[in-house]
Amino acid sequence: MSPQLSQVPNSAVRRLSLYLRQLEALEADRVATVSSRKLAQSLGLTDAQVRKDLAYFGQFGRPGVGYEVMPLIHRLRSIFGTDRVSHILLVGAGNLGKAVTTYQGFRARGFELVAVFDDDPQKIGGSVGQLSVQPMTELPQTASQHAARLAIVAVPAPAAQRVADQLIAVGVRGILNFAPTRLNSPPDVTVLNIDVAAELEQLSFLTNIGSSGPST
Amino acid sequence: MSPQLSQVPNSAVRRLSLYLRQLEALEADRVATVSSRKLAQSLGLTDAQVRKDLAYFGQFGRPGVGYEVMPLIHRLRSIFGTDRVSHILLVGAGNLGKAVTTYQGFRARGFELVAVFDDDPQKIGGSVGQLSVQPMTELPQTASQHAARLAIVAVPAPAAQRVADQLIAVGVRGILNFAPTRLNSPPDVTVLNIDVAAELEQLSFLTNIGSSGPST
Repeated sequence: MSPQLSQVPNSAVRRLSLYLRQLEALEADRVATVSSRKLAQSLGLTDAQVRKDLAYFGQFGRPGVGYEVMPLIHRLRSIFGTDRVSHILLVGAGNLGKAVTTYQGFRARGFELVAVFDDDPQKIGGSVGQLSVQPMTELPQTASQHAARLAIVAVPAPAAQRVADQLIAVGVRGILNFAPTRLNSPPDVTVLNIDVAAELEQLSFLTNIGSSGPST
Repeated sequence: MSPQLSQVPNSAVRRLSLYLRQLEALEADRVATVSSRKLAQSLGLTDAQVRKDLAYFGQFGRPGVGYEVMPLIHRLRSIFGTDRVSHILLVGAGNLGKAVTTYQGFRARGFELVAVFDDDPQKIGGSVGQLSVQPMTELPQTASQHAARLAIVAVPAPAAQRVADQLIAVGVRGILNFAPTRLNSPPDVTVLNIDVAAELEQLSFLTNIGSSGPST
């Protein structure tokens, strides 16, 4: 028995995404097996970290053989729930929303953007990528039609909570939030934030310690 | 003596950003002190986690008083290197680049976008926010003029490594990369990636375990 998935640290889940990228690249090159060492080296991690992360999910490499690439890809996709295509709703058809719709990597990783919404009459009916911008009033019907459980919020901060509430009301259970504000959500809804300023702070911190040496 | 900053886990540094946001909100409300418990509650963390994170930086709340808000804000900004304004270069004046330039939160957090670059003759000379798009040939002069050490890469994946190399050559030491590709960089350069598909995978994982219960 593997440990409960809810006990796996977030940092390990993030590394699984990296392993999956690397395994997919190996598979494209028709490589059948890979050692924890090779996987680790290509990502700047230690062998032990790779083995520990994958052991959470009951995957053990065999000595002298390593991990079998295709079975491990399938296992990781099943862990992520991306072994089938997940439908994604996007709210916000501004610059950021447009950037999200033109993002190339979704489909290959099991996600399909199925609808774009905005409140702005100037944007409604316009096209963003392959999609036509819908008014928020169409959210309930479209969400149910696509059985969408995941959404991306790309609206200004003051509108973000209202949009999140509307998404949750129509059955969305996971929100990727680009608005620079903290969203309140019920316990059965997961919100992940992409906070560009926080990333810059982290970058500034890491660049500082690199240049000035550790402070004591 | 506080421990070496280079030994502080990345997850703690990310939480420092959250503490700083929360403390700034308290300061705006003229709150002078805050307990680890209140700080923890507002962010969905445990008291112990907050105390442990802040102890890395030699900050200890006083029993019955808690943390003094303003001094802690100053300390955190100094840790992040955002007690002075950091100049940021942006490469890529597409939808994502435009979204980045209209992002409101930079200045308040100690970052100023000082220049935007693109290779596309159709974009050069156009304005993005308050800035005029410059050709990459002007990168060396502009970077040196602003003593810029941080940059945001918002170009398509195939162009990202070339752009990163050019930025590093002109003295940039921290890169926030939005392109869905892994960048190679020398040891004294930090690259942070914002990988939207990886965030969606994480979201899908967390939503899956929430809905189906832990697998065994």
